[in-house]
Amino acid sequence: MKLIIIGIGLIGGSMAKDLRRLFDDLEIYGIDHNTEHIKEAIALGVIDREVTMEDISIADLVIVSVPVKVILNLLPQILDKVKNSALVWDVGSTKHALCKSIKNHPKRDQFLAAHPIAGTEFSGPKAAIEGLFEGKPQILCETEKTRPDLLAWAEETFSKMKMYLREMTPKSHDKHMAYVSHLSHVSSFMLGKTVLEIEKDEQNIFDLAGSGFESTVRLAKSSPDMWTPIFEQNKKYLIESLDAYIDNLNHFKKAIATDDHQAIYEQMKNTNQLTQILNGIKIK
Amino acid sequence: MKLIIIGIGLIGGSMAKDLRRLFDDLEIYGIDHNTEHIKEAIALGVIDREVTMEDISIADLVIVSVPVKVILNLLPQILDKVKNSALVWDVGSTKHALCKSIKNHPKRDQFLAAHPIAGTEFSGPKAAIEGLFEGKPQILCETEKTRPDLLAWAEETFSKMKMYLREMTPKSHDKHMAYVSHLSHVSSFMLGKTVLEIEKDEQNIFDLAGSGFESTVRLAKSSPDMWTPIFEQNKKYLIESLDAYIDNLNHFKKAIATDDHQAIYEQMKNTNQLTQILNGIKIK
Repeated sequence: MKLIIIGIGLIGGSMAKDLRRLFDDLEIYGIDHNTEHIKEAIALGVIDREVTMEDISIADLVIVSVPVKVILNLLPQILDKVKNSALVWDVGSTKHALCKSIKNHPKRDQFLAAHPIAGTEFSGPKAAIEGLFEGKPQILCETEKTRPDLLAWAEETFSKMKMYLREMTPKSHDKHMAYVSHLSHVSSFMLGKTVLEIEKDEQNIFDLAGSGFESTVRLAKSSPDMWTPIFEQNKKYLIESLDAYIDNLNHFKKAIATDDHQAIYEQMKNTNQLTQILNGIKIK
Repeated sequence: MKLIIIGIGLIGGSMAKDLRRLFDDLEIYGIDHNTEHIKEAIALGVIDREVTMEDISIADLVIVSVPVKVILNLLPQILDKVKNSALVWDVGSTKHALCKSIKNHPKRDQFLAAHPIAGTEFSGPKAAIEGLFEGKPQILCETEKTRPDLLAWAEETFSKMKMYLREMTPKSHDKHMAYVSHLSHVSSFMLGKTVLEIEKDEQNIFDLAGSGFESTVRLAKSSPDMWTPIFEQNKKYLIESLDAYIDNLNHFKKAIATDDHQAIYEQMKNTNQLTQILNGIKIK
């Protein structure tokens, strides 16, 4: 079986590692505009060799793991080129624009819109981890538009990777991702920006970071190349959630300014219920 | 040597564990308004037995690790009662109001204002960890007001706990803590509140939390009993930093709304420099 991975970073590279373990006869080829990443991926054994977009027709499976703006550009070209038996899936963090863009493509049924909810703040093939997806959700969109045999094979493969499957419409996916994930990223990036601006002394950032800042700002290490197009494509729901967040911050600030300690206490107490919800994740 | 710990939670309990390892002859007594915590702390061997405020005069060392509002109330009473050779230190997250409140106490020189920058989002004696303070900073304020022999002993003890020492004025401590730590807590609590409000489906919070939310919201599990009085006592600097944070969020939102992708990219790229600053912590 021949696999081509387009974009061999954290997610693409981690998928390559899992799939190599699962399929004895797998040949893994890579495409990446970053030649360093290609070299690293070969050196690490993540891919066997480099190919180009001209070679797409040799693939049985194509995984598209590049920034969402690039997926939008590449996916029609990939579908144009793949052989009839091949499956293409992406791993992008937005789905509405993508699914809409290939809606009328004659090979739409060879594509599966997927979003594995896993990752770290790091990028590149060195960041790839075997078993990254174990116990993690794989969100699938518009599965009814994927050819049943290809869908069945993909679902079986995700199960072998020990992922659990969830289906959402592209719109619903983007909305919930904005609420839970994309808002967190903006919150973290802006926290980092603010602290860099108001706390001029880097030694203080060092010394005081252990008191909560370090974990809250973890996502501010993420790649702007990846995140700029996500925010662009999920504009509507992200603005909606940012409005709600800024409102809450303003209300909390007012409670502090007016010494409304009861309100401060109760808002924090109510939010503590997240502990139970998040512990649910661990139990899964 | 007799140690009384007032408030046997994460910080007080962790200090007890370290000090027991360092001093062979140490007897550790505890005071806590939570009788469950006293029982747990005895069962875990964190303290030897319960005492009351009436017993303060037997102590060679008193560690005050209760919420900052309670420290403010208790510290004068503790100083009234301690014997002349005893040292008292606190571990509170705000210092200005506290140092001011005991400024004229006749036993001011038996007190050391300390703030170890270490912890987790958990609380209670079960959360106590041996070695929690290793490699972590201990912030000391107004050391010139502590009796030199007591200060020297405390500094030696913190060094044995493998902490590194930093001095700040109470005002400067509170300002920098607001900027780096307290703002992070508000950011995280309000993120949690917002997501609970806009994302009604707990299953979605479960499933999508792995995509960044979980780490960003970690601090929203913190204790409102601890944090309400910190925000109360650090009102001025916290409001100042919240204003800067909300401004940044509004600007970023505007950049998204107006499709200013260059601005979005650059703000994130600039913020990425935190990676280097935070890696500095690890190297320490």
